[in-house]
This record gives sequence, C-alpha cells and structure tokens, in this order.
Amino acid sequence: MKYCSGCGEEVVVKVPEGDNRSRFVCESCDTIHYQNPRIIAGAIPVHEDKVLLCKRAIHPRRGFWTLPAGFMENEETIEQAAQRETFEEAQATIENLQLYTVMSLPHISQVYMLFRSEMVDGIFAPGEESLETQLFDEKDIPWEEIAFPTMSRTLKYFFQDRSEGAFQMRNVSLFLQKKLR
Amino acid sequence: MKYCSGCGEEVVVKVPEGDNRSRFVCESCDTIHYQNPRIIAGAIPVHEDKVLLCKRAIHPRRGFWTLPAGFMENEETIEQAAQRETFEEAQATIENLQLYTVMSLPHISQVYMLFRSEMVDGIFAPGEESLETQLFDEKDIPWEEIAFPTMSRTLKYFFQDRSEGAFQMRNVSLFLQKKLR
Repeated sequence: MKYCSGCGEEVVVKVPEGDNRSRFVCESCDTIHYQNPRIIAGAIPVHEDKVLLCKRAIHPRRGFWTLPAGFMENEETIEQAAQRETFEEAQATIENLQLYTVMSLPHISQVYMLFRSEMVDGIFAPGEESLETQLFDEKDIPWEEIAFPTMSRTLKYFFQDRSEGAFQMRNVSLFLQKKLR
Repeated sequence: MKYCSGCGEEVVVKVPEGDNRSRFVCESCDTIHYQNPRIIAGAIPVHEDKVLLCKRAIHPRRGFWTLPAGFMENEETIEQAAQRETFEEAQATIENLQLYTVMSLPHISQVYMLFRSEMVDGIFAPGEESLETQLFDEKDIPWEEIAFPTMSRTLKYFFQDRSEGAFQMRNVSLFLQKKLR
C-alpha cells in the first residue's frame, strides 16, 4: 500500500497513537488502513464414500490436487462460501456441512475453514479454475500430488476419523508452510 | 474506496473478466482490490467457575458488557489473537484454549471465533478499551447489558453445556444483528 484508498494521498507507515503495531496511516485524511487475515472456506465433498478433488488450473500449485476452497467473500456465511467454492471449482452441490478443520497459517495471514459435506448427487465437472475433477477412494488419493499441507492434513484427519467411526473438529496452526508459486 | 492503494489513480467499480462480483478495480495499474470478511477472536476466560467480562469503554455499545474479543491481526494464530485481546482488554492471561463458537455475521462481513479458556491466575484489570472488568457467577451475569448477540449467545451455550457436563463446539450464523453505534 502506497496511497490512501480514501483520499489518494501518500500513506506513511507508523504506530498510531494508542496502538502498538505499525499500520498504513494517511496523515492527510487521518485514516488508519488496517490489514487483517483472510478466510479460505472449502469442503470435503463426499459421494458414495468417495471424496471429490480438483486438479488446479491456476497458480499456485497448478496441476496439483486440492479440495475445493477459496477466499470467503463479504456478505456470506462460511458455509455459503464453502458451497459456492465447491460449485465454482467442481460444479458440485453439497449439503449437511459440518465444520471440520480450522487452521491458522500466521506466516501468510490466512485461516482455513473446511467442512465435511455430502454431495446431493453424483454430478460434478471441472469449473474454470480446475483442469480436472475426480471422486477418489481413500486408497487412490494422490498423496504426493496434493497442492497444500492444509488439504493433505484435512484428508488424513478425515480418513483416520472415518475408520474410527467418529469425526472430531480440529483447530490447529501450521507455522512452516512457505508461500508457493 | 475511491483511489488505488498501489498507484493512487481513481478506481472504478466493475465485474472483472472471469469474475461474477463487482470489485474495486484500478484500470491504470490493473489491480483488483478484493475486500473480505474479518475475524473477531476472543475468549471466555474462566477462574474458579466464574467468567470474566469487560465493560466497554469504546463505541459501539460503550457501557455494555462483553467477553474480551477483537479483530485478529496479520501474522498471528486465532488463539494468539484471543489471548492478546484478553490481555489488552482485561489484563488477564489465559491458557488451554478450546475453540467453542464460530459465528458468521454476513450482514457485517464478520466471523466471530470464541474460545473456552482458563485464567492462569485470578489477576485481571481493565485495559484501555474497558471501563471495568469483573468475574461473574452464572446467576449474576448482566444479561440485559450484554453488548452483542454473539456474546450473549456464546455465554448461554457455555452455561447450558457446563450444566450438562459436556461442551460442544457450535458453528452458527446470525443474520439479523444490526450494525450498532
């Protein structure tokens, strides 16, 4: 950020009075421009015990497999965001969403929120951001080709919990993942 | 938003190619300025079966009671945000955080994430944003003077679960709360 989005003057970086962090501050119109973490909402879409994955058509990690997920938008709930992303990336409709993994990624200021879910039918197809979509049995999951640690971790929890017959929500933090390009 | 924070030129509102939502777009430097929901992280600090509340010294809802909570910052985990806010608002140190309520407020593009927690000792005091801090027994909670529906809802779940001897994480959406000033 170089310019104030409110008045167009140059911003400075300083600790505002009463604060203890550096912020982008416009000294012309006295606006503090806060920056906050973003939420990535997504789902584990399940149909006949198989899990729907998407092969990414976009960077980062183009060509790798992921659960459908993306940035939550203003004016929607987390569930709506997860349903929207699942439809956009995999043309699949999901229901019975249960919050399953909540993952802080402080080094990139993101919070992942992924839901267990059921596909309403067996219909799916690649959306614009996917090269391919496919239902996988547990034994066929391409573990070496999963795009992000958040996704492989969520899938591992899911299959582990399923084999034990009880799902439990996980709130974890991943500190080491690098920004991938 | 009127001006591009990257180059200072005026932005326009339009649906970018390949998108389906209106965004602030800079046609001078081709930057799309996305806006996303913000996370409010906070805690239910418990000491000897009592819950610590803060009387707000700031708007909105100055003079009303709340659980300590505030905007999550970049480069922290949700737990760290909840611990930081609890210390800033109530000068209390908490541990053993367990994610308890996750609440979408789509009309104001916020997501609340509140944790059950234990105070490490009985020490607390009002921080800069609080007029007063106090430990409350369940029977003394000032229900009519709680600042936000997210907080009264979380407190109700907490006492209900505690009386039943088992806590369960809640993910809910609140659609009707108005922006309070």
